[in-house]
Amino acid sequence: MAYANQLPKKSDDMSGWYNTLVLQSELADYGAAKGTMIMRPYGYAIWELIHQQLDEAFKAKGVSNAYFPMFIPESLIKREASHLEGFSPELAVVTIGGGEELQEKLIVRPTSETVMYEAYSKWIKSWRDLPVMINQWNSAVRWEKRTYLFLRTTEFLWQEGHTAHAAHDEARDIQKWAMDSYEKLFLDFFALPGYIGSKSKTETFAGADNTMTYEILMPGGKALQSATSHDLGQNFAKAFHVKFQSKEGDTQFVWQTSWGLSTRSIGGLIMAHGDDKGLRLPPKLAPIQAIVIPVKSDDIVITEYGNKIVNSLKKVGIRADFDTRDGESLGFKINKWELKGVPVRLEIGQKEIDSQSVKIVRRDNNESQVIGLVKLTIKVSEQLNEIQASMLAQAKSFLLENTLTVSSYKQFQEAMLNSKGFLIAFWCGNPECEAAIKEQTKATTRCLKDIGNDNCIYCGKTATEQWYFAQAY
Amino acid sequence: MAYANQLPKKSDDMSGWYNTLVLQSELADYGAAKGTMIMRPYGYAIWELIHQQLDEAFKAKGVSNAYFPMFIPESLIKREASHLEGFSPELAVVTIGGGEELQEKLIVRPTSETVMYEAYSKWIKSWRDLPVMINQWNSAVRWEKRTYLFLRTTEFLWQEGHTAHAAHDEARDIQKWAMDSYEKLFLDFFALPGYIGSKSKTETFAGADNTMTYEILMPGGKALQSATSHDLGQNFAKAFHVKFQSKEGDTQFVWQTSWGLSTRSIGGLIMAHGDDKGLRLPPKLAPIQAIVIPVKSDDIVITEYGNKIVNSLKKVGIRADFDTRDGESLGFKINKWELKGVPVRLEIGQKEIDSQSVKIVRRDNNESQVIGLVKLTIKVSEQLNEIQASMLAQAKSFLLENTLTVSSYKQFQEAMLNSKGFLIAFWCGNPECEAAIKEQTKATTRCLKDIGNDNCIYCGKTATEQWYFAQAY
Repeated sequence: MAYANQLPKKSDDMSGWYNTLVLQSELADYGAAKGTMIMRPYGYAIWELIHQQLDEAFKAKGVSNAYFPMFIPESLIKREASHLEGFSPELAVVTIGGGEELQEKLIVRPTSETVMYEAYSKWIKSWRDLPVMINQWNSAVRWEKRTYLFLRTTEFLWQEGHTAHAAHDEARDIQKWAMDSYEKLFLDFFALPGYIGSKSKTETFAGADNTMTYEILMPGGKALQSATSHDLGQNFAKAFHVKFQSKEGDTQFVWQTSWGLSTRSIGGLIMAHGDDKGLRLPPKLAPIQAIVIPVKSDDIVITEYGNKIVNSLKKVGIRADFDTRDGESLGFKINKWELKGVPVRLEIGQKEIDSQSVKIVRRDNNESQVIGLVKLTIKVSEQLNEIQASMLAQAKSFLLENTLTVSSYKQFQEAMLNSKGFLIAFWCGNPECEAAIKEQTKATTRCLKDIGNDNCIYCGKTATEQWYFAQAY
Repeated sequence: MAYANQLPKKSDDMSGWYNTLVLQSELADYGAAKGTMIMRPYGYAIWELIHQQLDEAFKAKGVSNAYFPMFIPESLIKREASHLEGFSPELAVVTIGGGEELQEKLIVRPTSETVMYEAYSKWIKSWRDLPVMINQWNSAVRWEKRTYLFLRTTEFLWQEGHTAHAAHDEARDIQKWAMDSYEKLFLDFFALPGYIGSKSKTETFAGADNTMTYEILMPGGKALQSATSHDLGQNFAKAFHVKFQSKEGDTQFVWQTSWGLSTRSIGGLIMAHGDDKGLRLPPKLAPIQAIVIPVKSDDIVITEYGNKIVNSLKKVGIRADFDTRDGESLGFKINKWELKGVPVRLEIGQKEIDSQSVKIVRRDNNESQVIGLVKLTIKVSEQLNEIQASMLAQAKSFLLENTLTVSSYKQFQEAMLNSKGFLIAFWCGNPECEAAIKEQTKATTRCLKDIGNDNCIYCGKTATEQWYFAQAY
């Protein structure tokens, strides 16, 4: 009857644990069409918290939201050659509309550069129209053969920001600002530290000059690319004729950026923080931060006491709920809310009523204490802050413990075979070395760490850049 | 150079006026794929205000948001026969995915009943799981041959609420509650009164037992269906096997509702309130409520004064902006912001600085006055409230003036030929009368008004229901 019994151990069977957990915690479910996912209310509420936070940061910077059509004419997506090449194998294609075979096929957006910049070319005339900074909250479609809820689905939710500027340095500033916004979100809300840097040419977004990435570490030692921000240079501007008259009166191409974060990040959240009992949600991304559980569900006095507590918590802005569901034992409910990762649970029964107190149990470390009603809201707020900080500290330790600087390829190979994690190593920048390393160790370049002077870990030639390597999730 | 010069007169050429206005005011643009629309930041900001308001009302009622995939397997959409029949001609179909011909075609959602209720059938087991009340903010696709921005586009944004209940009366309460929420939104935010009632069988949603509608009146006298709420009975429950074990222990089908409001409502807003100068946005749906316009754009002292004013307005929660764009005359700017429908504009120059005042002009009636800085924020707030109330009163008068009770078919025909508008008439309920009336006058039943006892306006037989008739937009 207890939930946790059905959950495989995380350490024994990570993917079995993950799939079972996502379904049982009611975060998500499989959609009817192969490869698709349903975000259930509990999972979608996490996305709403992410949305709220990022949206505020974007608007404060002067970015506006808009909506562009999901259908992109095939001819449009072909306009930027490397972009098409990158996305071609992943496309979903509409060939029938309104009962008729279409003359031109429509692609369901895998990303919106093409359809947006076609419009930008009409809208932008003068330097006075710049910068254009538009974001969309929508879904994108990239075909997947094997579904992995949140992490790999044919359709996913995301935001995609797309800006156009008069000067390259202004565009680069926005590329960095977007990555800073993501970093802030991951540190303060996800409690997930990561490494930030530029991608190698091989791993750069199709059509971009430079891609910055936020790379987090999964248990098991693989890296998850969690958000990206691209300097598109003038590549799309040239393909889509996005030009403006400068202050000086000549005609120039704009400089562009795009940047995005998707529901994939929630997959990383589950994977990184969860344990054998289920989810552990950081309070700032927990749809329910405090769950009140009655020792008995059908006791009127306990119910009244519980309602009073929930209301007082809600009044100070804590997302609280009261589990009065019939027909479940106390033990069952405890397991259920542990599985759902609610940061603190408050148990109440006659004993607590008699002493006007509540038993509080932290999900992250299972510590419990009894608190008098008078101090309850303050104490719960404190605990939520502590949990948020403690989860971040734990994730930081994990990241540091699993980041190793290696100076020989032998050491590199051994580490990748055994402990995995992030390896810091010099690389000469040659894609052949990168490919050979991937072939031999499954590790890919995750992002540039630093400039320096040493020898390439693989070929031994001069290398001026130090990189993070890891196996990709 | 002035914007308004390019705008056809509303009374001369309504559709020319409408199309030009939507494009010039930068609410929306045509997408690259035929039939699609881009919601530009200014238009999308209106949708965000609608979203915010409805979302709050839904959540207060206990409705949760979620996200279901846009792709629906063809077999699933065929499960409820009348539903399929209703949507068949409008579908967009994906036949290629990931470079391969699909074994089963995927429909891009025209609405999500099928894909959602398939999931509900898995999730709902017991009366304890009910009610399920889920809403989605997404886009739907229904093929259109002729595009009309906001009003008729192949893809549109909307919210779709879908609930499941243990009892029919509970479902009917939710159907009504949803319509009440829409009514409140239309009255308080859109400033658009309308008629509410049930649709005739012919006009009922494909798969529903009963459809309630909110019908507003467009200039020119045609009616626009602006939101609907459906009692789905047990039709989908039976097709998708959505069953639960009742308190008494037997197995029953759930009772369901669905309800939606789309970006089409913004088309109604533009059409109903706009005038020859452009948009007139009711303050509660205006992305910019007060625009500050400097007499000269390059004057540092005026700019400082303007910034101070904008900040003081923002501080009290007024959505204010300052138009410092270079190279536009005062007259050009006034025309531009009139076209964009900003409720109040504040003009400032040296004269205003000297007297520490602002010239305020109302968009709705062009009344202007000079206000001292001390009272500015209070005065602007007051004016916004007055404008909101005045626009509603104006729309109410228009609706009442164009609603006529008719007692003979001759009167009905004459009114439909000349003044149009809503006609109140008895109808026997026979679809043949309904079809003949439509054929002869272009008028359709819009919604049930009342129960009564009279003769059918068309066939003269006994009629127990009084209906609103109008030509459909």
